[in-house]
Amino acid sequence: MPFVNTRTVRIEWGHCDPAGIIFYPRYFEIFDASTALLFEAALGMTKFEMLKRLGLAGIPLVRTRAKFFKPTRFGDDVTVQSTITFGRSSFEVEHRLALHGDLCAEGNEKRVWTVRDAQGKLASQPIPAEVIEKFTMPAASRP
Amino acid sequence: MPFVNTRTVRIEWGHCDPAGIIFYPRYFEIFDASTALLFEAALGMTKFEMLKRLGLAGIPLVRTRAKFFKPTRFGDDVTVQSTITFGRSSFEVEHRLALHGDLCAEGNEKRVWTVRDAQGKLASQPIPAEVIEKFTMPAASRP
Amino acid sequence: MPFVNTRTVRIEWGHCDPAGIIFYPRYFEIFDASTALLFEAALGMTKFEMLKRLGLAGIPLVRTRAKFFKPTRFGDDVTVQSTITFGRSSFEVEHRLALHGDLCAEGNEKRVWTVRDAQGKLASQPIPAEVIEKFTMPAASRP
Amino acid sequence: MPFVNTRTVRIEWGHCDPAGIIFYPRYFEIFDASTALLFEAALGMTKFEMLKRLGLAGIPLVRTRAKFFKPTRFGDDVTVQSTITFGRSSFEVEHRLALHGDLCAEGNEKRVWTVRDAQGKLASQPIPAEVIEKFTMPAASRP
Repeated sequence: MPFVNTRTVRIEWGHCDPAGIIFYPRYFEIFDASTALLFEAALGMTKFEMLKRLGLAGIPLVRTRAKFFKPTRFGDDVTVQSTITFGRSSFEVEHRLALHGDLCAEGNEKRVWTVRDAQGKLASQPIPAEVIEKFTMPAASRP
Repeated sequence: MPFVNTRTVRIEWGHCDPAGIIFYPRYFEIFDASTALLFEAALGMTKFEMLKRLGLAGIPLVRTRAKFFKPTRFGDDVTVQSTITFGRSSFEVEHRLALHGDLCAEGNEKRVWTVRDAQGKLASQPIPAEVIEKFTMPAASRP
Repeated sequence: MPFVNTRTVRIEWGHCDPAGIIFYPRYFEIFDASTALLFEAALGMTKFEMLKRLGLAGIPLVRTRAKFFKPTRFGDDVTVQSTITFGRSSFEVEHRLALHGDLCAEGNEKRVWTVRDAQGKLASQPIPAEVIEKFTMPAASRP
Repeated sequence: MPFVNTRTVRIEWGHCDPAGIIFYPRYFEIFDASTALLFEAALGMTKFEMLKRLGLAGIPLVRTRAKFFKPTRFGDDVTVQSTITFGRSSFEVEHRLALHGDLCAEGNEKRVWTVRDAQGKLASQPIPAEVIEKFTMPAASRP
């Protein structure tokens, strides 16, 4: 069974545009934070700690896709359900954002495990096995 | 005893800048949402419902001030404590943002109760008495 | 020959994250503004004027896709080249973002021509013929 | 005569809220970028280059104040006029944002010249004399 993280996000006034609905780049901010929280749920550490302990520079995107089915607006408490699929040095995260059970938006991110090389430049690297394992171990054994 | 609303906010990766600390305009996004949640705590309705039920167009700022004592960074769970003081058609909100009990930032907003006049233009209006009362009634009688 | 609008955008400090590169939702803010400027180039009016004169509520997205080839960072002056393809009540905009001639990111947006119906709800509508014509008329005859 | 930098900024759809006017934290994003461009006008280098060449970690705020006189909205091309006053390791920047000559907002930032100390922690430092000089030399001799 795939590892799933679910959280609730309040859509804020400042996320919305003059049409009264969410300004779509804000969905990507929500997805980005949801990916960080997915890792936190699995690894038991914040992104700040991940970077420090795992020598990570970041997990930048190489590709994203999103579909928007129903607009959301300020005051809405939406749920975001995120799942992950690992490649060698990249991974994909699928986010499903819903309001009262209705799917409003979905987004898919392809990201790369990125470190700084000896010259300080960003470079991809295979995802550590112990990171991937945390997503497959039974919930009861998780941090 | 003044009405106080306290909430916890996660500082996200996307809130931070290349120095690794929060990009300060993000504090104002947090303050803005905290003001909406302060009203929600007192009135028992979201800002969306406030606008609809009270014929409100918004509560735009006329002035703000903020001090930044200690930087915060992604992964920090900060608390924001908000209090309000009412004038006739304006009000001030004071926000205190802390991490592990240490004050990191404080902000003060002066905002105006704003409606649309007959011509559809934004105009100030006295704050309804029933709104102000909700901030002074005992917690037990609140919505 | 398709209608193309090109503009230059400065990547700012506040667009970048702790890895020192652009926080990807900012690309979508850039794409969104680029779409508005594409219409402005063709129609000779800002989005504000478009909404007013054409009875438009907005042009919300139904789908987007983006690829990120090379990171950009604060201080970079990137060019964004935008082209449009019209459907009946929807259209697609393709954005190509480059730095010194190197393609850094590309994004594709599918948007819907949206008005408010008699009940004030957002609803799609065929794109007015006079709008589409402006994108096909010779540059010399444009506003 | 004080060093002044003036630039034009387009207020975008995505900067505006459901009241149809600018969401005020966006003004601080504009002010922040205006400060970077003020330095760029005086020093002849982008903030990215400043950090690299001057060993700077950033110029974080310790205090800000702003007043909002008239709302601006998407499609407005506002001018931002920025001036600077230097202290020892801090400085103040004053921004005046106007539309068609009418002052709409003004903001004052107090910022600190910040480097990373031997332990990698952010620490203030006296502003280099050669930086301050660039703001006082006659325009003709500037980079």
